[in-house]
Amino acid sequence: MKEFALAPTPEDGRLTEQVGGIDQNGDPVDTRVVVEQPLTLYLNGQEIVTMMTVGDHPDCLAVGYLLNQSMLAPDDRLTGIDYDEELSVVVVRTERITDFEEKLQKKTLTSGCAQGTAFGDLMEHFDEIALDRDAVLKTSWIYTLSRKINQQPSLYLTAGAIHGCVLCAEDRPLIYMEDVGRHNAIDKIAGWMFLNSEGPEGKIFYTTGRLTSEMVIKTVRMEIPILISRSGFTAWGVDLARQANLTLIGRAKGKRFMCLAGEDRLVFDSLEVEGDV
Amino acid sequence: MKEFALAPTPEDGRLTEQVGGIDQNGDPVDTRVVVEQPLTLYLNGQEIVTMMTVGDHPDCLAVGYLLNQSMLAPDDRLTGIDYDEELSVVVVRTERITDFEEKLQKKTLTSGCAQGTAFGDLMEHFDEIALDRDAVLKTSWIYTLSRKINQQPSLYLTAGAIHGCVLCAEDRPLIYMEDVGRHNAIDKIAGWMFLNSEGPEGKIFYTTGRLTSEMVIKTVRMEIPILISRSGFTAWGVDLARQANLTLIGRAKGKRFMCLAGEDRLVFDSLEVEGDV
Repeated sequence: MKEFALAPTPEDGRLTEQVGGIDQNGDPVDTRVVVEQPLTLYLNGQEIVTMMTVGDHPDCLAVGYLLNQSMLAPDDRLTGIDYDEELSVVVVRTERITDFEEKLQKKTLTSGCAQGTAFGDLMEHFDEIALDRDAVLKTSWIYTLSRKINQQPSLYLTAGAIHGCVLCAEDRPLIYMEDVGRHNAIDKIAGWMFLNSEGPEGKIFYTTGRLTSEMVIKTVRMEIPILISRSGFTAWGVDLARQANLTLIGRAKGKRFMCLAGEDRLVFDSLEVEGDV
Repeated sequence: MKEFALAPTPEDGRLTEQVGGIDQNGDPVDTRVVVEQPLTLYLNGQEIVTMMTVGDHPDCLAVGYLLNQSMLAPDDRLTGIDYDEELSVVVVRTERITDFEEKLQKKTLTSGCAQGTAFGDLMEHFDEIALDRDAVLKTSWIYTLSRKINQQPSLYLTAGAIHGCVLCAEDRPLIYMEDVGRHNAIDKIAGWMFLNSEGPEGKIFYTTGRLTSEMVIKTVRMEIPILISRSGFTAWGVDLARQANLTLIGRAKGKRFMCLAGEDRLVFDSLEVEGDV
């Protein structure tokens, strides 16, 4: 796969809006801001959730959300994804009724509606996943990935206020998705991998967002052994990464970073002389 | 009320953890990271949601969440809030059954469980709220608030990876709450106002997070006419702010900012000579 096989399209006029206002001196200013719109997701006949999204790649977002919530299993067969831009609705259709729908029907019959518990479980199968122990992460890749991703034209550079997630291999960024929530951006990557039958082998996951429990769990569920962020950590994110033996790199800026889990995959190939940047 | 009547407590050992790792040279490092833990919220007998939170002020978070989701009405009377730290459960009890519970029971009986629609509606009453047209925002307050908030000891300064929201009056920060999600931080402020019978009169809301639709809707629901952030905007956030005539200030850093809605409340009292910072 070539670098940035899929990348942000900041030139797409549907994803940003030109807005006028005033600045600190009262002078008129024009600025670009990212679009944020509701998208209602159905799994077959079941309404699942309404998400706020920048709006691109609704198919990937829908499928990734369902996978990450265990509402769709990796072996479920899709028969179609219908997206209606005008109605802001996306419907994912499966060959047969999913385990999730079956559970939901039983739940409705027996115990009525209980919010929270009706949702699929993000943690389901977390403990069963064995990440590739032989994967390596060269420190030079971290610096190269960060530089390439930061320089790639994006909604972030155009309008700010958006998170990015990038599926990488070695020092090559491959699939770069953005969304107003980092949970959406990672779901889009998960959905893209499912729809394109792309496996986790040799992959590295990069995010602009914080390394929370949710980011760690979703990365582990995607079976990707390495997660890099330019932002910071939460304690539960670190705990979960250690449990799963995920290599967790945070605060990656310039030629600095901090590794709080899975240090054994690191290969220090770029220990530079002091002062070199 | 005095400045920072309620402020972050970064010295509270329950809110951060000391974690060891390695840096870019392979040298051992110690760092502090914020705690992130589940908190399950009940409204009377009804399980509502499990939130990820840093864990302080569970009472404010619980009540603010329910208010902002329209699951609790401003005139509902609370009879108690029970927080069990060990079980990570908080139960909000009301004098009588809430409208929300009643709706939920009807829904369960008639149409079964439908996720998403079972939740209260964040947008409910949005159109009915008239924000104070006479409120003013002096530009000098923006700069003073930003400076005071940025210099106040916080989990953000100690460990990063956290959002802050501050209830202010003129150039005085009053109530400063932090949480791993900005939606939690704003809910905590809403809950604090309800529990302390503090009204929106003369108030200004400051957030470190982006000005998304959710932040705008929640600020309007709190009837606070002015919202300031050091981060950027989303298009729907700007649209909603204009609909509600909310004064929306973003990218507030040093002596710069951008105002994209409700400009008429601004008073330019600090137009400085060029180069002055």
